Amino acid sequence: MNVDFINPFLVSLTNVLETMAHLQLQPAKPSLKNDDSARGAVSGLIGMVGPQCKGSMSITFDADLAYEIMFRMVGERPKSMNDEVTDMVGEITNMVTGGAKRILAEKGYEFGMATPTVVTGLSHRIIHKSKGPKLIMPFNSQWGKAHIEISFES
Amino acid sequence: MNVDFINPFLVSLTNVLETMAHLQLQPAKPSLKNDDSARGAVSGLIGMVGPQCKGSMSITFDADLAYEIMFRMVGERPKSMNDEVTDMVGEITNMVTGGAKRILAEKGYEFGMATPTVVTGLSHRIIHKSKGPKLIMPFNSQWGKAHIEISFES
Repeated sequence: MNVDFINPFLVSLTNVLETMAHLQLQPAKPSLKNDDSARGAVSGLIGMVGPQCKGSMSITFDADLAYEIMFRMVGERPKSMNDEVTDMVGEITNMVTGGAKRILAEKGYEFGMATPTVVTGLSHRIIHKSKGPKLIMPFNSQWGKAHIEISFES
Repeated sequence: MNVDFINPFLVSLTNVLETMAHLQLQPAKPSLKNDDSARGAVSGLIGMVGPQCKGSMSITFDADLAYEIMFRMVGERPKSMNDEVTDMVGEITNMVTGGAKRILAEKGYEFGMATPTVVTGLSHRIIHKSKGPKLIMPFNSQWGKAHIEISFES
């Protein structure tokens, strides 16, 4: 995994949220922090398997940011982390990974996507256990933070 | 996904824990509960991608059960959900899925495994978002419960 992997996921999340929710996040500096993990209220996770590499991706949202995205999509702000919110996070996870997959294929990296899993629970922690480096991409907004984490091994 | 999928994962978890920790869980009745999700202290998740189907699996442990497994493996009981415990859960996830993969290949179901992700956080909830049915396999022990959940779509 190398810097080729950063932009496809960054661009894909930005596009998905702009298109689905007219919401813009401010990307902060990506890092290779192996002793740190995203904490949040709701996360979407997905595995990827390809001939050259395999790995996992997670997108983690603060609660208020997830609720704002939902509000902008359906016109109603959720009062709790209900099935509609977790369905939405699963869909976002699928769409962001699908977008990144297309861009990475043009760069010669092929992989198939598994199906998403969503995690809820106040301040849960996601720890990717691939043998490869872990890349963390933070995003800020007035409603809270989001993080994308990706980790691939050859 | 059908009943062919239950036993390979059940047998594989039983074998892994017996071999690695000389610990036996009591399997309870598997079910297709789509409105319920495992809650626990630590979970291992992994995606799977194959020509016929793709999906995800999670193994969720109560804290005391995870600590007992760790104690039996290394001789020391952890005092918190630290990196050693999450590494162990990642390894168990890999080994259980690898074992099930081999058994399912003999039945004609091929898939590649992504890399595991571990989730911690008191009473986090795992929700598999594939379009297929969700199978839950509960296990009991004197130290607490474990659950395997699998969900595949064609």
